[in-house]
Amino acid sequence: MPELRKDPIIGRWVIIAAERGDRPGAFVHEPVTAFGNDNCPFCEGQEKGTPEEVLAFRRDSSAPNEQGWWVRVVPNKFPAMEIEGHLKRTGKGMFDMMSGIGAHEVVIETPRHDVEMADMPVKQIEEILWAFRERMIDLHRDLRFRYVMVFKNHGAQAGATLSHSHSQIIALPIVPKRVSEELAGAHEYYHFKERCVYCDIIHQEDNDNLRIVDTNEYFTAFHPFASRFPCDTSILPRQHESFFSDIQMSEVTELAVILKRLLLRFKTALNSPPYNFVIHTAPYTEEDMAHYHWHIELIPRLSTQAGFEWGTGFYINSIAPEEAAKRILAEDIIEEVSAG
Amino acid sequence: MPELRKDPIIGRWVIIAAERGDRPGAFVHEPVTAFGNDNCPFCEGQEKGTPEEVLAFRRDSSAPNEQGWWVRVVPNKFPAMEIEGHLKRTGKGMFDMMSGIGAHEVVIETPRHDVEMADMPVKQIEEILWAFRERMIDLHRDLRFRYVMVFKNHGAQAGATLSHSHSQIIALPIVPKRVSEELAGAHEYYHFKERCVYCDIIHQEDNDNLRIVDTNEYFTAFHPFASRFPCDTSILPRQHESFFSDIQMSEVTELAVILKRLLLRFKTALNSPPYNFVIHTAPYTEEDMAHYHWHIELIPRLSTQAGFEWGTGFYINSIAPEEAAKRILAEDIIEEVSAG
Repeated sequence: MPELRKDPIIGRWVIIAAERGDRPGAFVHEPVTAFGNDNCPFCEGQEKGTPEEVLAFRRDSSAPNEQGWWVRVVPNKFPAMEIEGHLKRTGKGMFDMMSGIGAHEVVIETPRHDVEMADMPVKQIEEILWAFRERMIDLHRDLRFRYVMVFKNHGAQAGATLSHSHSQIIALPIVPKRVSEELAGAHEYYHFKERCVYCDIIHQEDNDNLRIVDTNEYFTAFHPFASRFPCDTSILPRQHESFFSDIQMSEVTELAVILKRLLLRFKTALNSPPYNFVIHTAPYTEEDMAHYHWHIELIPRLSTQAGFEWGTGFYINSIAPEEAAKRILAEDIIEEVSAG
Repeated sequence: MPELRKDPIIGRWVIIAAERGDRPGAFVHEPVTAFGNDNCPFCEGQEKGTPEEVLAFRRDSSAPNEQGWWVRVVPNKFPAMEIEGHLKRTGKGMFDMMSGIGAHEVVIETPRHDVEMADMPVKQIEEILWAFRERMIDLHRDLRFRYVMVFKNHGAQAGATLSHSHSQIIALPIVPKRVSEELAGAHEYYHFKERCVYCDIIHQEDNDNLRIVDTNEYFTAFHPFASRFPCDTSILPRQHESFFSDIQMSEVTELAVILKRLLLRFKTALNSPPYNFVIHTAPYTEEDMAHYHWHIELIPRLSTQAGFEWGTGFYINSIAPEEAAKRILAEDIIEEVSAG
């Protein structure tokens, strides 16, 4: 019997219909591989192909916008927002709009064209996470912005237009809808229980021990009870923290380890799927919040989204998160991951 | 300068960033073509390959589950919900769930394998829409259900697993999240203005005359002011109606005409894209509502969804709806459509 499950934060119902995984053609995807590197603007030596860097971790002896870096952040050449200008709100009849002021940056995660995040040394992933933190803190100083989104698209099917490993940062004058919903839902829960809903979820996931896919001192990763997608994964700091940008170096190390292990598990158990991740952190203008807990959503793209999900906000997931966790944690995969 | 635009009903901000349409690889999609028809269970003569029909429009002389039909509705062979059983709500610690009771049906839109909706006679599309109405009214009688979703996935990239033209009906014991949001937003607007927000939108679209892509006596189709996707299309009845199932035969004819014309325009102007449509109607349990107005969302799949949209509810659209309307309405296309 399929089950309807409710997301405890935003109240979205999801159907878990295991039988549908047997349909012909379910979970077909092309494994992601690197392609083309002629004149890739993200490769070392091609620094002139991008706008000037806003941050780079590079050898002391090297000059900006030259070789010698290991992580490099540049403005997006095709930005969704413009950094210069005033934030102006206008009405057009009953419709409301705002000038598209914002920042849109690219984090080039490695000088090498053919290395994906799963195969990077933990130290390199730490550096990338640290770059996210530094850019967040810097963009925070611009009072026009209310939110900074950090996300990664891996593989063309997940929206990446360039194969060279990178992620993106967008600073916005508004709070994205999903984050607003989470803030509202978490606030309501806090009002009712006087506890953080995310802390309560970690506590129950620990006790149930059915959906956890990795855990260490500072972080826990699990497939949420009301997962929208097969292997939908949440990564939460075990201690209550509202802002990603408050992360400490010791935590960054643990986060890099858990991220690498998860990506390797995806690669091995799920045949190198395209994936996306997004960091959900509290909006700038808020004080530290007892009810909001930053987290990462990591989604392998295993099924074609049918599209009616966009029209309805209603999801059908053909693998229960408990079953997905078993697959991800299968013994042979653990061995391969440990060897990785 | 890009623009941030706000959806007047659910308050979602969307960025309209025209420059990004120029990116390499933007809007690449495979044109949808029919494939395979050996043993297609939806073809005439293969009626035994599906569960028994719940509705069919067929010649008087023909028997159920035999040849002689022109529209046929059958239970989905891989249903997301089960029709038999009691609706039971349970808690698992802090998590909430419900038994997956519901109906999941397939509307086989034509006996022929290789005819897509855009190429069907208007009369055939009328019959399909009438089948939607009949199934809605019938499912309405089951008091376990609160909502009936009607949607269509055209092309594998839009989630169709079979090429033979069909749409789907899902009856649910819950109201999908997007519809709840629309109901809440429309109610708030009504409280403030004492008018239906959708009626106001039609009025402004008529006056602006920038985003309308088709209109006739009973219906208007336009790209919404805060479109999430290129050529995101809404079709609304011009008179206030809350329930799709209250549609009259004269209206069905006009809706079939507008749907066929739009699908032909997509085919010609956008190179046969995959697409989805979803009918948004009021929930069963509600009385006729002054604030809610049924409508159809029709979305051609022109861009890969980057995935961060799922994590944030924030969309970047690289073609302004005013520009999309111009492309869709280009002169040569109109001629082809009239000839169609």
